Amino acid sequence: MEKTKFMNHTKPDSEVFYIAVYDIASPKRLIKVTKIFRRYMNWVQNSAFEGNLTFRQFNRLKEELLQIIKKDKDSIIFYHAEEQKHIGKKIIGIEKNEITQYL
Amino acid sequence: MEKTKFMNHTKPDSEVFYIAVYDIASPKRLIKVTKIFRRYMNWVQNSAFEGNLTFRQFNRLKEELLQIIKKDKDSIIFYHAEEQKHIGKKIIGIEKNEITQYL
Repeated sequence: MEKTKFMNHTKPDSEVFYIAVYDIASPKRLIKVTKIFRRYMNWVQNSAFEGNLTFRQFNRLKEELLQIIKKDKDSIIFYHAEEQKHIGKKIIGIEKNEITQYL
Repeated sequence: MEKTKFMNHTKPDSEVFYIAVYDIASPKRLIKVTKIFRRYMNWVQNSAFEGNLTFRQFNRLKEELLQIIKKDKDSIIFYHAEEQKHIGKKIIGIEKNEITQYL
């Protein structure tokens, strides 16, 4: 019954647009965190990724990150918008983002 | 005539919500860029600021940044939304942001 309710109402496959920025205190954890992000989102800059994720993908990403980071030392911020069209983007200087790393 | 048109239609005092992330190749320029950002926006993380800016404030900030950065080496991304309510925020780990630095 709970499951049916979940299936009907939370649209687990609809995507949300995320921008992730992070401050990781140790270089070793930084490499691991960046590696995880690359599997879910697109690299845009040192310590910044963007991409569309479903609710499930976001939760999986969060779980993986929580296994690596130290919660009292590292910080990861996710900005998110239901619709990507609500967010504009202006770049000053060089555009560093790579080809899409989306899986 | 041009001026009147400008005054009537572009609402120079309405604010837009910005998230700025930056990659600055030299530590010396990085310090200068961070100092400029602190006068306009709120520090949220190493190399990330957020805040509401009018069209005029954003242009002034951009002009100041362009005097410091090397366009072929440094990169600054501004994400922006007309309404801050369109952007949500989730934090994993510690929240690093300081007291508002807004002038």
